Amino acid sequence: MGSEILEKFRPLFQPRSIAVIGATDNPFKLGYHALAAVTSTGYRGEVYPVNPNAGETIQGRRAYRSIAELPHGVDLFVYAVPETQVLPTVREAVERGGRAGVIFAGGFRESGEEGRRLQEELVRIADSGGMKLIGPNCIGVLNTRAGVNATFASPLAWFPSGNVSVVSQSGGMGNCILNELMDERVGIAKFVSIGNRANVEFADMVEYLAEDPDTAVICLFIEGLDRGDDFLRRAREAARRKPVIVYNRGFTESSSRTALSHTGSVASSEAVYRGAFAQAGLLQVESANQMACLAKAFSMGGVPRGNGVFMATHTAGPAIAISDICERGGVRFPPLRPDIADALRGFIPRHAVAANPLDLFAFAWTDNALYLRATDLALAQEDIHCAVAVFVTGAGSGPVFPAREYAEIGRRHGKPVFLCLVAPAILSQELEEAQKEGVIAYNTPEKMGEVLVHLNRYGLLEKSAAT
Amino acid sequence: MGSEILEKFRPLFQPRSIAVIGATDNPFKLGYHALAAVTSTGYRGEVYPVNPNAGETIQGRRAYRSIAELPHGVDLFVYAVPETQVLPTVREAVERGGRAGVIFAGGFRESGEEGRRLQEELVRIADSGGMKLIGPNCIGVLNTRAGVNATFASPLAWFPSGNVSVVSQSGGMGNCILNELMDERVGIAKFVSIGNRANVEFADMVEYLAEDPDTAVICLFIEGLDRGDDFLRRAREAARRKPVIVYNRGFTESSSRTALSHTGSVASSEAVYRGAFAQAGLLQVESANQMACLAKAFSMGGVPRGNGVFMATHTAGPAIAISDICERGGVRFPPLRPDIADALRGFIPRHAVAANPLDLFAFAWTDNALYLRATDLALAQEDIHCAVAVFVTGAGSGPVFPAREYAEIGRRHGKPVFLCLVAPAILSQELEEAQKEGVIAYNTPEKMGEVLVHLNRYGLLEKSAAT
Repeated sequence: MGSEILEKFRPLFQPRSIAVIGATDNPFKLGYHALAAVTSTGYRGEVYPVNPNAGETIQGRRAYRSIAELPHGVDLFVYAVPETQVLPTVREAVERGGRAGVIFAGGFRESGEEGRRLQEELVRIADSGGMKLIGPNCIGVLNTRAGVNATFASPLAWFPSGNVSVVSQSGGMGNCILNELMDERVGIAKFVSIGNRANVEFADMVEYLAEDPDTAVICLFIEGLDRGDDFLRRAREAARRKPVIVYNRGFTESSSRTALSHTGSVASSEAVYRGAFAQAGLLQVESANQMACLAKAFSMGGVPRGNGVFMATHTAGPAIAISDICERGGVRFPPLRPDIADALRGFIPRHAVAANPLDLFAFAWTDNALYLRATDLALAQEDIHCAVAVFVTGAGSGPVFPAREYAEIGRRHGKPVFLCLVAPAILSQELEEAQKEGVIAYNTPEKMGEVLVHLNRYGLLEKSAAT
Repeated sequence: MGSEILEKFRPLFQPRSIAVIGATDNPFKLGYHALAAVTSTGYRGEVYPVNPNAGETIQGRRAYRSIAELPHGVDLFVYAVPETQVLPTVREAVERGGRAGVIFAGGFRESGEEGRRLQEELVRIADSGGMKLIGPNCIGVLNTRAGVNATFASPLAWFPSGNVSVVSQSGGMGNCILNELMDERVGIAKFVSIGNRANVEFADMVEYLAEDPDTAVICLFIEGLDRGDDFLRRAREAARRKPVIVYNRGFTESSSRTALSHTGSVASSEAVYRGAFAQAGLLQVESANQMACLAKAFSMGGVPRGNGVFMATHTAGPAIAISDICERGGVRFPPLRPDIADALRGFIPRHAVAANPLDLFAFAWTDNALYLRATDLALAQEDIHCAVAVFVTGAGSGPVFPAREYAEIGRRHGKPVFLCLVAPAILSQELEEAQKEGVIAYNTPEKMGEVLVHLNRYGLLEKSAAT
């Protein structure tokens, strides 16, 4: 069954050929940006620019005047055309054996009764040829591993490849999530702006991504669902195999008014969604940034086996913020075993208390081996399941945290290690370097605390699912 | 009375001369970094490096072997010496007419009974000569306008000058707040890491900053207070003149344990603090980032005169997140007046609904004058007190938001205008450019929504204070 769904969406995510309908040399038109995006990623399949008004070439590639001129069975059609041209060109593509399509234009289900009728007709045409449609009213699809950028945004080609996949109802919020992943230095596998969901639903994408070998973490932005039961059933299946993180908006009066005119969903009440998502084992977050931070931990395999944390710091304030957030969320800082506390007393600075959290004062900033020795001792304790180090960046003119050695200690104990590297976002290079060593790093104490709380919730969800 | 407190702390914030006790050429010592920091900002007063073991010069400046060699009445003493040398050198400085001091070393009140006794002795010595002490157990003081960097962190000299001042009990959390201000592209006036509060309390700094003509917004990070009544009385006075934003941590078991060993405060219960702060007219935030975002709005004069917002977007998802957050926080999106809705219908795209929030679809991304025309109309409505535009960055390869014209519309109506520029933090240059025009800009919808909610709370606080 797994390979069936992979095969069903292969033409969308791993197309052997892409046609761009409406491609042009005019940079003030969407079709220009769509073709530029498709060719921005080093895509190795065939690319067919189609425009009835074209000359010999478009952006240096051989131009096609009509879909009828194309070879039979092009995998993916990118429709960069106005709404009035969508139905005719989709019909032609279906007749020519097209397998999948991405439709940017709005003016369908989200725009009232006439639009709804148009979209129903669109679905009939597509279904008659088995063509899977992303959109209408979307910004498209990205698959970093296959070099596929079927959007109209060339900059998406800059996103590093990774194992986090994102499905967003809203293109704009999809952008927000991708931005946060970029700032957190997390690579993405696939991105789908699902839009009006003509004949591809959230449930389809979740089932696909659960099977997709390139995806380790699934992120969803949802404004509303049509067939909630189907989604919950298939999302629950997915959540048994991979973490599924949901960010949900559109609960209040104005926001649901906008959601209606947006992708044609009727927003339901918050409590109903929240309860159902939790029962299905989905992790719910409150912002795009929380989503990216949590996805990073999963992406790097950082799921502690329990709620006990050891934290060491050279500066108390950020550690206080982390423990404040953690304890409200059920994460504990277990007292250290007497033998471990004794061992610590052998080398920690004068005035330091051999406790958890462990404040090593400014001494640990310059002598950062203190972190390593303390963490190595503490991770041996049974009810401590991960470690957090808090360190203020030297910003290139001060000490550097010993990320490689710290990661090695974590691996030796089989427990994830985290770093709160207090740094401005513009110094995220330093964060990325720690992550390359295997340390799961965040640049603020609030992000660090919230991730630990969410990971703990995930552990509880897993346990309740197992019983 | 105002000029009295300014004069009292002039030697600290605007010293005519600075002595660095423990200055050295050895870059592995704190005294090296302290002298480097003092000279990193283009400070124009006299600088006296003091070290009994020095040769002729330290870092190229004439060296002094003892405090007794210094001219009488040096304004500011920076003590980059171990805890054991603090009392003797402070005594010498007081005898030599020193006016203010910054003490980095720990090992005082935060470290138990002996330390508490030492700190009491320290206060006696300083008070005998009227010397005001920042610390011990702190990272010092910064005054960007006067080029004073009395810390051990040269990179603090990079922070742009502005009108936001920060007082943090914790040096590390002070760092977090400064980082967030940097990421939000907000300039700072003064920064004080207040540490153990030997004889300078939060209340003193709040009173000072309320009078300080360079400070428009006061930010406080508090882990605990000793004389709460005195603080609340003086903070209430300050809040009548300038916005005072408080970030408070240290409520839970582990965090208050760390706070105790940190700067010697006993953390009190959350509810007591929260209630008292609200009564005093202080604005409370939940993270360093929220603090920076809110400080930015105040810093740029962006306080709407009521809770009515007009929002226009080319992408619904982020606008839905903003309205979701806003409506939970009492911020409203008033329906448009019939004449304004009619006027809008004259030019908004087909399928767009002349409503608030206003979704202009992708058309407004390329034809961004749509934002200007719509905002100009909506701001004429009485119960609309500010405008928000949502715009996804073109990341240098797409359209740019018309910040200058948008800001002009706001000025013409006398109402603040906000921009949610959906962009990764690493593109904050674009955000800064919009801000230079007078547009208050945030790079995520969550930040934008939370700021509007906080500004609304501030308006309510002001109203309740006025009655």
